[in-house]
Amino acid sequence: MPSQQSELVRRHWAAAGAVEHPDREAADHAWAGLTTEPLGVDYIATDDVPALWIVPKGAVMDRVLLCMHGGGFIGGSVWSHRKMFGHLAKALGARALVFDYRLAPEYTHPAQVDDATAVYRWLLDQGVGAVAFCGDSVGAGLAITTQLRARELGLPLPVATLAISPAVDLEVTGSSYDANRDRDAFFHRELVRGLVSTFLGPDGDPRDPMANPLYGDLTGFGPIYVQVGGDEVLVDDARLLAEHAEKAGVEVRLDVFPDMQHTFQMGAGRVPEADDAIGRMADWVRPHLMMEA
Amino acid sequence: MPSQQSELVRRHWAAAGAVEHPDREAADHAWAGLTTEPLGVDYIATDDVPALWIVPKGAVMDRVLLCMHGGGFIGGSVWSHRKMFGHLAKALGARALVFDYRLAPEYTHPAQVDDATAVYRWLLDQGVGAVAFCGDSVGAGLAITTQLRARELGLPLPVATLAISPAVDLEVTGSSYDANRDRDAFFHRELVRGLVSTFLGPDGDPRDPMANPLYGDLTGFGPIYVQVGGDEVLVDDARLLAEHAEKAGVEVRLDVFPDMQHTFQMGAGRVPEADDAIGRMADWVRPHLMMEA
Repeated sequence: MPSQQSELVRRHWAAAGAVEHPDREAADHAWAGLTTEPLGVDYIATDDVPALWIVPKGAVMDRVLLCMHGGGFIGGSVWSHRKMFGHLAKALGARALVFDYRLAPEYTHPAQVDDATAVYRWLLDQGVGAVAFCGDSVGAGLAITTQLRARELGLPLPVATLAISPAVDLEVTGSSYDANRDRDAFFHRELVRGLVSTFLGPDGDPRDPMANPLYGDLTGFGPIYVQVGGDEVLVDDARLLAEHAEKAGVEVRLDVFPDMQHTFQMGAGRVPEADDAIGRMADWVRPHLMMEA
Repeated sequence: MPSQQSELVRRHWAAAGAVEHPDREAADHAWAGLTTEPLGVDYIATDDVPALWIVPKGAVMDRVLLCMHGGGFIGGSVWSHRKMFGHLAKALGARALVFDYRLAPEYTHPAQVDDATAVYRWLLDQGVGAVAFCGDSVGAGLAITTQLRARELGLPLPVATLAISPAVDLEVTGSSYDANRDRDAFFHRELVRGLVSTFLGPDGDPRDPMANPLYGDLTGFGPIYVQVGGDEVLVDDARLLAEHAEKAGVEVRLDVFPDMQHTFQMGAGRVPEADDAIGRMADWVRPHLMMEA
C-alpha cells in the first residue's frame, strides 16, 4: 500500500499540465513545493559557474555529490531541486553541488552535456577528494553522458552514480509506456517523444551516445544505483539502463518502488517512500564516496 | 496604472483562502512563490537560534537587518520570506537575519515578542556594528514591540525600522476597512478580528503595548519608514503607526503605493512596484545602518 502522503506526488504530476505559471522559475518553485526544507543545511552560491553548494552542517567537505536536476531538459533548476538534493546530502553527510545548465528549446543537445562537463571540470579543479554523480529523470541520463564525455577528455570518472527515475531511452521503446499508461499521472509516449525532439532539435540523432546513454560504452564506469517508481511509464528506461550497464561489466543495483510516480523522491520530508529511497541512496553511495582517496 | 505583474500578488491573496495545503510549510512555500530568487545570496543556518543568515555576496558583514516575517502570527517562516528579505539585503549590501518565532494558536502573545527579543539579544551578543529592524504585516508590529521590550531590558535600540504593510491596530478601528473593502483581495475586518483574537488568546488585552504598538511609548526610537499598499484595508494601520510615532518625536516616512495589495513587496523580482519599494527601503535605511558606529 502506498503511503497517503505519496498522493501529494501523484497530485503534483496530475496537475502539472493544467497549472499555468508566470515563468519557468515559478514552475520550478511549485515543483520544489513537494519537498520540505531539510534544515541545518547551508546554500552557498558559486562565483564562477551557475551552481549552488549544498552544505549540511558537519558534512565532509572534500567529498562531493555532483547533482544533475531533471525537468525534461526544458525546466528544472538548482531551485526546484535544492531541497531534495539537500535531504540526500544531509543523509549522506557530504557536500552536494547542484548546477543550472542551458535548457531547450532555446538550447538543444549538446549544450546540456557541454555545461555539465564544464561544471565537473570546475569541480575537479577545486581539488576535492572524491566525487559521485546523482541525477534524476533526464538529469540521470546527463549523469551518464557527462561521464562518456569526461572519459573522452581524459578526466577521471566519478566513483559512483545515483540514477533517480532515469529518462534515457530517446527512442521511446519501453513496453512500460503501455503497461503503466493508466498508472503514470503525467507521462505518456507522445509527451516524451515531444520532449526528446525538443531536446535533440531538428538535426539530432536519438542514438547519439552523448544524448542517449543506451548507445554509450559504459565499460570501466563506477557502480550505478538506479531507483524508479513502479507506476512510471519510464520503468523500462530504468531497466534498460541497468541492463546496458551490466552488459558493460558495471556493478548495478536497481530498486523498483511499487506504486510510486516519477521522481517521487521530490516528496522528501513528507513522503515516507521518498525518505526511504533517499536513505537507501545515502547508505549505498557512502562507502564508495567516503573511502580513502 | 498598476503593472500587469502586480496582478500576481492580487491573485495570490484572492486564492489564499481557497487553496488547501498539506501543512504550514507548504502554505509558506506557496507564498514564497511570488518572489524570484535574488541570486548571489548565501543562506547560512544558525546553530543557537532558529534563524537563517541571508548573506549577499560582497555584503558588509557587521551591519545587520534583523527581519521579522508576517503571516498573521499563525503562519510565515524564514522560508516564506527568505527571498523577499534576500532582495532587500542585496539591494542594501548588508547581511540580514530572519528568524522563526512560535506561532498561534499553539503559542499566543507574548511568545512572539519573547522569541524576537531573544534573537535580538543573541544578535547583539555576536558583536555587530549596527542593527536595523525590518518587518512586514504583523512582523512590522513585532519590530516595534520588540524595541519596547528591548528598552525595558536595557538593550540598545536599533538604528532604524522598516515597516512593510504594518498590521498593528489590534482594535481594528481603521476606516480603511470600509473604504478598501472591495479593493483588498483578502483581508477584511472580521478576518483580522479573528487573527487578533487567535494571537492574544482568551485573556489578551488588545491595548497591551507589547502586543499593540499604538499603545507603546516610542519616544527615543530611531527613524521609521512605513510602506503600505493603497488597496489594503490596513492603510489606516500604517497611518496610525506613522502618526503615533511622529507624536513621540520619531522621524517618520510613510509611502502609500497606489493600487497595491498587502505586502506586495513579496513580488520582488517580478513586480516592478515591489522592486521600486525595496529599492526605496534600501536607499532610506543605508545611511542609518552604514554610518560609522
